[in-house]
Amino acid sequence: MLMKYRLYTPGPTSVPEATLLELAKPVHHHRTGEFRTMFAEVQQLLQYVFQTKQTVYTITGSGTAAFEAGFTSVMAPGQRVLNVSNGKFAERWSSYAKTFGCELVELKLDYGQPVTPALIEAELKKSKFDAVSLVHSETSTATVCDLAGIGKVVREVGGEGTLLIVDGITSIGAMPFKMDEWGVDVAITGSQKALMLPPGLGFVALSERATKRMADAKIKNFYFDLKKYQKSIADGDTPFTPANTLIEAQAVSLRMVKSETLEVVWKRTHTVAEAFRQGMKALGLEIFSSNPADSVTAVKYPAGVADKDFRNNLKSKHNIHIAGGQGTMEGKIFRVNHMGYTDPYDALAAVAAVEHALRALKQPVELGKGVCAAQKVLGELFA
Amino acid sequence: MLMKYRLYTPGPTSVPEATLLELAKPVHHHRTGEFRTMFAEVQQLLQYVFQTKQTVYTITGSGTAAFEAGFTSVMAPGQRVLNVSNGKFAERWSSYAKTFGCELVELKLDYGQPVTPALIEAELKKSKFDAVSLVHSETSTATVCDLAGIGKVVREVGGEGTLLIVDGITSIGAMPFKMDEWGVDVAITGSQKALMLPPGLGFVALSERATKRMADAKIKNFYFDLKKYQKSIADGDTPFTPANTLIEAQAVSLRMVKSETLEVVWKRTHTVAEAFRQGMKALGLEIFSSNPADSVTAVKYPAGVADKDFRNNLKSKHNIHIAGGQGTMEGKIFRVNHMGYTDPYDALAAVAAVEHALRALKQPVELGKGVCAAQKVLGELFA
Repeated sequence: MLMKYRLYTPGPTSVPEATLLELAKPVHHHRTGEFRTMFAEVQQLLQYVFQTKQTVYTITGSGTAAFEAGFTSVMAPGQRVLNVSNGKFAERWSSYAKTFGCELVELKLDYGQPVTPALIEAELKKSKFDAVSLVHSETSTATVCDLAGIGKVVREVGGEGTLLIVDGITSIGAMPFKMDEWGVDVAITGSQKALMLPPGLGFVALSERATKRMADAKIKNFYFDLKKYQKSIADGDTPFTPANTLIEAQAVSLRMVKSETLEVVWKRTHTVAEAFRQGMKALGLEIFSSNPADSVTAVKYPAGVADKDFRNNLKSKHNIHIAGGQGTMEGKIFRVNHMGYTDPYDALAAVAAVEHALRALKQPVELGKGVCAAQKVLGELFA
Repeated sequence: MLMKYRLYTPGPTSVPEATLLELAKPVHHHRTGEFRTMFAEVQQLLQYVFQTKQTVYTITGSGTAAFEAGFTSVMAPGQRVLNVSNGKFAERWSSYAKTFGCELVELKLDYGQPVTPALIEAELKKSKFDAVSLVHSETSTATVCDLAGIGKVVREVGGEGTLLIVDGITSIGAMPFKMDEWGVDVAITGSQKALMLPPGLGFVALSERATKRMADAKIKNFYFDLKKYQKSIADGDTPFTPANTLIEAQAVSLRMVKSETLEVVWKRTHTVAEAFRQGMKALGLEIFSSNPADSVTAVKYPAGVADKDFRNNLKSKHNIHIAGGQGTMEGKIFRVNHMGYTDPYDALAAVAAVEHALRALKQPVELGKGVCAAQKVLGELFA
């Protein structure tokens, strides 16, 4: 039976038609005045999305590439890093300190538990750190932390020497994120989440303090050396061949964000997420996270439902594509995206499909209970 | 706020991405072996969709063009036509008899009332007709008639000399339609309804009896002379320049229909329509037709809801595009498409948007009541 393609994985996410059409245009050369003009506009739009006055560097690479550029450009071997480890992506950032000879202290939390300002404060009072790194919205557990509060603590307790390095890959452009106001020193994201582009671009911004630290950063890097990007961008360029068709398409998606305004994007994403969560709860399902992010929802499987069967049913019968759990969460949760090019009726479709899939797997489901609960929440957007 | 574009008008209807991509390919020349091979495949696919062994002629033009080709190619001035007039499109076909000098008898029914085999039988018993023309699924009133029963009556009572001319524009490819089995002599449709293409192509098929009548047809025509098409198609061609990019794209959409199978398409369309109707009824709204078609639903506006406000709300707040009423039905009904590239979650979105729009217009609405009712019906597709 014909079912429309619906990509509800938390990255890559669905891309708007206008952006896809831009990607279908002929390839341009990138060392031109036209590219520089467009790239300057993208810079302004990225600053709006990051809520920063600082330069946002565009890296041709993934979000991890952007993190590597940020980390290796501001850190030196032997420096002390406090990394919050409470999810698959948070754990990845511990590898950076280890790989590049920094001294790593891990603040380990259970999956699904957010780090709090108090927990960070306690660590900063115990000893001095050159950087605190953490994930704002952890995609693997669908958990968000109080970044505004953490920023305050890092400034006040960590002091001038402690950089706050934040993976905003599934928060920037989806949930409130205010780089300058919250005192984030290194902020990174990727193109394939809230920014409504296929994978291929990473973005990283440095605060003034972090920018100053670049001079003393002693980690050896080349492609990821942000000093090179800083120099090039003064001429409106990139140091290496950029994925210029992706950047041109990113301009289209970012203009959509600007036109909708961040406040409306945040409200839409929040309400869509809340509708989905209420839909799941109405069906008797449990949300995995103790502090759910709005960008993605992780739902615990009820007893008797196998991840493979459930997702295969959604894929084969509904053409709906969602994610399972990663690592130790594999088989225990499923994850549904709300970021970027997602609208209220995507939430309804997701809840409806979950109802049908659970019923197909012989679970007790009252059809309509979930979508009814979700629809009530969506009413907030049209009141 | 970002809302995805949803075209729910009963033609043009939404077109699949694969078909749109075909339309984006470079233009080919049409007098080539490649065109003839593709056109021969389209012929077979159209025969499947029409459920006929006869040739289906492709006219570059609208559904009306296809009707004109069928009518003017088989009729002669002075011949007697019984036309059922019970909707805007049904009324249009009366113009053909008048324009081309036939003797017209109109079987007038209230809008929303289907013609029945008994009504046709009574007319055929009163006097002799050279043709009976009617609309199988009237788009303006969203009403379907019992075409199988009517075909039987025309054959048995009208006899060999009475052709059955059927506008199947919003039934062929959406609802059961069996040209040969039901004894339809002239069957027409357009590309922009159930066949999942933009407007631009009309299709018309003639039974053996109708084909024989072409020799005696004395209405003057040129572009619409099906004898020319009959001659060309023997060489795999069209008599005039065809909209060949549309035909190439039509092949893509028709392959989708074949792959899904007509039976599944009919079931999907029926269930989606029934879900939408039950959603409307749960909200206390009334269906306009006494015998609703599955291709499109016409819903009566409740007192106090202005068509303009309602459809403007859907358009501006939901990016959902539906149709109002035509002629004397203007302002009294709204119409929502279920044909072609429409899936179960389109029905949910349509019902949800109606709930939000009615609420925005200060109507008493219990959010979720309609979508819950619709979702229960959709369960039939995933049981």
